[in-house]
Order: sequence, then structure tokens, then C-alpha cells
Amino acid sequence: MEVSARNAFKAKVKKVVDGAVNAEVILEIAPGVEVTAIITKSSAEKLGLVEGKDAYAIIKSSDVIVAVD
Amino acid sequence: MEVSARNAFKAKVKKVVDGAVNAEVILEIAPGVEVTAIITKSSAEKLGLVEGKDAYAIIKSSDVIVAVD
Amino acid sequence: MEVSARNAFKAKVKKVVDGAVNAEVILEIAPGVEVTAIITKSSAEKLGLVEGKDAYAIIKSSDVIVAVD
Amino acid sequence: MEVSARNAFKAKVKKVVDGAVNAEVILEIAPGVEVTAIITKSSAEKLGLVEGKDAYAIIKSSDVIVAVD
Amino acid sequence: MEVSARNAFKAKVKKVVDGAVNAEVILEIAPGVEVTAIITKSSAEKLGLVEGKDAYAIIKSSDVIVAVD
Amino acid sequence: MEVSARNAFKAKVKKVVDGAVNAEVILEIAPGVEVTAIITKSSAEKLGLVEGKDAYAIIKSSDVIVAVD
Repeated sequence: MEVSARNAFKAKVKKVVDGAVNAEVILEIAPGVEVTAIITKSSAEKLGLVEGKDAYAIIKSSDVIVAVD
Repeated sequence: MEVSARNAFKAKVKKVVDGAVNAEVILEIAPGVEVTAIITKSSAEKLGLVEGKDAYAIIKSSDVIVAVD
Repeated sequence: MEVSARNAFKAKVKKVVDGAVNAEVILEIAPGVEVTAIITKSSAEKLGLVEGKDAYAIIKSSDVIVAVD
Repeated sequence: MEVSARNAFKAKVKKVVDGAVNAEVILEIAPGVEVTAIITKSSAEKLGLVEGKDAYAIIKSSDVIVAVD
Repeated sequence: MEVSARNAFKAKVKKVVDGAVNAEVILEIAPGVEVTAIITKSSAEKLGLVEGKDAYAIIKSSDVIVAVD
Repeated sequence: MEVSARNAFKAKVKKVVDGAVNAEVILEIAPGVEVTAIITKSSAEKLGLVEGKDAYAIIKSSDVIVAVD
């Protein structure tokens, strides 16, 4: 599957923290570059996300904010 | 300023493409790792975004989708 | 590829309207049920979106608003 | 009230799952077509969302990702 | 219609700027407090948004970022 | 830091409600005008958000929905 989202990064799952409805997933997209995702706990389970698993982080370009100092 | 968004990456502006209302901004957050942002053209101008400028890419963790093969 | 987004609908492209930076894509996810997406024009081109093409509409559950009368 | 969001579907609440801060709401927008929403638990309570209730699922077109196989 | 979005502000349209696909709408939600929205141009037309019109600005709480100095 | 998001409001924290993974933060951006944000609990802690603290509410203009009666 190929997505319209301009930002689709190959990643490795570093950590999954479960909440009641949501889960926090930390993905490493490059050495030392981590992206945190909040997804539903049931999605995390359905995708079988566990530490070390290969995954992708997908971000729509309209969801990126740019800042400058 | 420090933001609640879990994903705030130091970046360098690689390219800015102007549309009528929006602009597409390509940011390099690590060697070879690029993030594309769509922001309003007036924001791009206000922030003075031009190739080579230091900037940040900020992404809310609830906007990240996780995928697996 | 399987995504964490809880809402992933099989669809057929009904129409693509190009802007300067963005494109508006109308997808039919069930008979008479259409979803409109705004994506970058370059993504629409990269995915080869044209009327009649099979596609998916993917929506994060945190992006859905619920309303009642 | 009429909204700018291009995607506003008449729906019936199928299920509400409460978390600590958020609730997961499953809406049927057409026979067999379900949309999952994550909203705050207090919103779910304020709207009186219970199984069988009429509701709407509203999605901004800029929040829809398109994918192809 | 009542929405799950926690942030629904009564507003007055201050200005509408049309692009090719999108429109930028500036809304005043309190004296001197303005909110800018990017919506599709066809939505702006469908809602009849013109300067001085009464409207609402609706924002999902998961789309709000918090920052501190 | 200056952000591309068109909506950046000076605010005061009114209330923080912790969930398992997320926290709900209520910010007053003008007298009687409150904005609710859902952020991760760890972000709320990292920013030291407590009642009375000065903060900003930042919202991308593409995340604002416009409605009319």
C-alpha cells in the first residue's frame, strides 16, 4: 500500500505504553531520531506492536507545524 | 518556547514551494530524513522560510499513524 | 501495509480537482457514500489518482468529530 | 448548524467504550460501514451518546489520507 | 447540532481570502481574538461566508498544542 | 520560538485533568474564553502545567472547522 501522506518513515518500535483507550508508541525513524505516536490500544494490539518490530510512521504534511527561533 | 507536541525536530529548510493560499515546506531533520509541511503562505513569509534556514518541525503525537507490512 | 488508523475504507476515485499546491479527491467508500480528501497535488500524481481507480480512504479516529441534533 | 467539513455523515451509535479521559465511539454511517471516533469522555457524556442514538460523524477533508495498493 | 469538539466558539467572519482549492477564513471569537481557518473554497461558498456573517469556529481538543516560555 | 500555526494564543492554565496516557488541559485565552487541549500526560508534566501558569494554545488553521446556523 502506498499512501498520499508525504511523510512515511521506515521505523523500529522502541517502546509501547498502554493506557485505558490509547497507547503511546515510540518509533525510531533514523539513528537517534524518535517519533512518538498516540494510537488506540486496540490498533496497537491489532498491528502486534512490540519493541523491536519493524513499522512505519506516517504523518500528513498538513499536520506539520514549522517553527523558527 | 517549549511545546507539548512530543515531536519537535531541529531542521534545515530544503525547499519552499508557494501555492495560492498554502506553501509546501521541505525540512531536513536528520541527514537524508526529510519532513514535508503544508502551512499557509503568509506563515511561510512571516517566518522568513528560505532554503538553508534553521527551523523546527513540530508534530502532535496524535497526528502520527503507525503502519506495518 | 496495515495501518493503525481505525478507519480505512476501500474506495473508488470519483473525481480529482487540482489546485496550485493541493488537490481535492472525492472517493466513494460505499454506494452513495463519498469521502472528500485534500492531499498535496504531488501526492495525487505520485499515486496516479484518476477517476475510477481503486484506492483507500484512511482517517485517524482522533480526527473524527461526533455531533448530535 | 452546517459545517465547513466536507465529510458529515448521518450515523447511528453502535458502541461507546470509556477510557480515563477519552472515549471510543463506533458509528455506523451506512449499512456495514463503521467509523470509529476518539472523543473526550466528557463530550461523549454531554452529547448523551449511547448505543442506538442518532448522530453525525464529521471529518475535515484535510484529515483524510488516500492510499493505493 | 451539538458537536463533540470541546472548542466551539461563536464568531463573526472578518475576512475570506480565496485560493485555488482552499480559502482562508478569519473569525473573531471575542473582541480582538481572531482565529484563522483554512477550509475548502467550495465549503466557504456553500456556507455563504462573507465579512460580517455569524459563524462558529470548531476545534477538536486533540488538535490543540500547549506551549510555555 | 515563533510557529507557523496561525493561531497562537497567550493563555493561563485553568485546570489539568490527568488520564492514563493523556491529560486534559483547560486554558483561558481571553476573559471567559476557554480552550481545551488533550495532550500526553508526560508532556503536561514536562511543561510543568499547573493551575495559574502562563502558557500558549497553538492551533493549525487547517484544524479549524467553520460552521453556520
